[in-house]
Amino acid sequence: MIALCTKEDLLDGVGKVQKAVSARNTLPVLQGIKISAGGGELLFEATDLELGIRCRVPVNVQEEGVMVLPAALLTELTRRLPEGAVRLEQIENTLHIFYGEANFQINGFDADEFPEFGNMDLEKNFTLDGLQLKQMIRQTIYARAITEDSRAVFSGVLMEKKGGEIRMVCTDTHRLTYVFLPLGEGGSDFRGIIPGKTTVEIQRLLDDDPVNVSFDQAKMIFKFKNLDIMTRLIVGQYPNYESVIPKTCHMKARINTRQLASVVERAALLSRDNSMKMAFVRFKIEGDVLTIDQNNESGSIYEKIEIEQEGDDLQLSFNARYLLDMVKVIDTEHLIMETGGSANASVFRPDGAENYISLVLPMRL
Amino acid sequence: MIALCTKEDLLDGVGKVQKAVSARNTLPVLQGIKISAGGGELLFEATDLELGIRCRVPVNVQEEGVMVLPAALLTELTRRLPEGAVRLEQIENTLHIFYGEANFQINGFDADEFPEFGNMDLEKNFTLDGLQLKQMIRQTIYARAITEDSRAVFSGVLMEKKGGEIRMVCTDTHRLTYVFLPLGEGGSDFRGIIPGKTTVEIQRLLDDDPVNVSFDQAKMIFKFKNLDIMTRLIVGQYPNYESVIPKTCHMKARINTRQLASVVERAALLSRDNSMKMAFVRFKIEGDVLTIDQNNESGSIYEKIEIEQEGDDLQLSFNARYLLDMVKVIDTEHLIMETGGSANASVFRPDGAENYISLVLPMRL
Repeated sequence: MIALCTKEDLLDGVGKVQKAVSARNTLPVLQGIKISAGGGELLFEATDLELGIRCRVPVNVQEEGVMVLPAALLTELTRRLPEGAVRLEQIENTLHIFYGEANFQINGFDADEFPEFGNMDLEKNFTLDGLQLKQMIRQTIYARAITEDSRAVFSGVLMEKKGGEIRMVCTDTHRLTYVFLPLGEGGSDFRGIIPGKTTVEIQRLLDDDPVNVSFDQAKMIFKFKNLDIMTRLIVGQYPNYESVIPKTCHMKARINTRQLASVVERAALLSRDNSMKMAFVRFKIEGDVLTIDQNNESGSIYEKIEIEQEGDDLQLSFNARYLLDMVKVIDTEHLIMETGGSANASVFRPDGAENYISLVLPMRL
Repeated sequence: MIALCTKEDLLDGVGKVQKAVSARNTLPVLQGIKISAGGGELLFEATDLELGIRCRVPVNVQEEGVMVLPAALLTELTRRLPEGAVRLEQIENTLHIFYGEANFQINGFDADEFPEFGNMDLEKNFTLDGLQLKQMIRQTIYARAITEDSRAVFSGVLMEKKGGEIRMVCTDTHRLTYVFLPLGEGGSDFRGIIPGKTTVEIQRLLDDDPVNVSFDQAKMIFKFKNLDIMTRLIVGQYPNYESVIPKTCHMKARINTRQLASVVERAALLSRDNSMKMAFVRFKIEGDVLTIDQNNESGSIYEKIEIEQEGDDLQLSFNARYLLDMVKVIDTEHLIMETGGSANASVFRPDGAENYISLVLPMRL
């Protein structure tokens, strides 16, 4: 391998793939980033066997070659290189990095041990808008389970494409997020559970380029711009989320989103045990007023928000964290809250949007 | 207490004193911030018995009063208040905070249990320029010992004022920083060891206002702007630092500061044990060239920097962390390195400045 590039080229490639580098030590070569020079580009690859990322960066390749380099050292060095031109030269299994008059050498892993990504052009596929997918992930991902003892399906995001529509769903069993978008005709139908880590990474990397999605039973590949992201799918039965979404509603309220966020943040300071681990907030809805009136041994809060309400007055309590996660992804000035009663799930959605809901179960205090 | 103020007034007072709030639980009232309303101002006070900070904020006081409020809750609430006017009202030992139509109440500690700061106008005193003191702290503080098992004197900063000059010294026994400035005549002479935590806090709070420093045997008080900072002094014998500073020099070099920082950062990636805990860098100085040429099992680095050198060629090794700390506080384009040989301490200072040195012992590899 001989290639002429810049610090920025290396930063781009290394930065895009590094979240797929394995943090565990089972197979040392997975702590590496594979770099293949050829066809006028450097191909960067990393995988932890569940998630794999490839990034192509066009550079001046003078001699082909393949190496696997320790990701941590390569990343740290790349950040510390002076700005400007860099010459990469492979001598046996060592990469010589020339910058100015200087030379930094990194010893490689055995490239043959690095797993093949396999077929990256699966037959079944469809296409998505990059920014729309990014927003769908943003609106759902926070509701996934992140504790280690969760059933695997709850740590992922359900994606479903059928009937000219794409849906995403997340739940940790205490709350559920659900979003759908029309997709037009064409493309294969799909239903699968994407690991949370993959979804977070896709959200980070997406921009306004269209995304080609291809898949088989076991894996899924997202292609956009200079990136290919391969992910295993989570095996398991996703719960019947549609049955969870309430069909009836006894109370509907229109609430200023930022006002609600602000008062919930303050009320959360007075949680039962003075730790923020399980802060709660108690809503009392009477007529067109939402009242927060709660206390603990440290103090108390009393606030009223003017709302527009239809239906029954009621009182109910929520985990404050769940409400704060929800208001962060609602970009409209007002949100709509609908509930079937103080023991039922409440549904929150942006005012004027019918394609997204954030469902939160009440707390029993 | 009844006072009219703004969110920003509270943020100012709470933010200035909060680093003096005790993190330990020995005396619960020390987890509080004392607020005294009177004389057209709120006086905020916090202390962990070693460091005490008072901050005065002018507000509209309608009724005097004194309270001690839990610092964590007060701080978190203050950050989350809506912008604008706030009314504080003490009812028994509870502070009622009114904002808009809302009311947040915080239960206070027993204010009588809060320790008195004592006499804050000690007889012996002198005056310093705020920005000069800030820079002196910046240039010395990083060399103090921060491990818990260090002798107490090494965790602090020695300050000495005598003969129309002020000096500050820090050492962890592996490196030493030393700075002095002319101070003009007037004021009392002083020699004492200021705790590291206090010094960091003073550095954070200082601006271009002049600082009045008063002191007795046991404590020291810094006054500037709306702040009084009281600190206990560390009892103990500071080592004779002047004997450590080399009097002779076999090699003197003038080195570009940023170039040196950059190459040391890269060389540090190749530390002996692949952990950054004790990264080293090896200098080879021959004629007007500084060469870095080192390797470990991960790779190697070879760089040359053009320097201006007088004296003997030599090789010596340093803890890379010590060099990186040092270059961060040298603001001149070039620095001067002087050394008595590869087993002796090296002295680094800004090119053209005689009033600051950073002394670093070599590593024996």
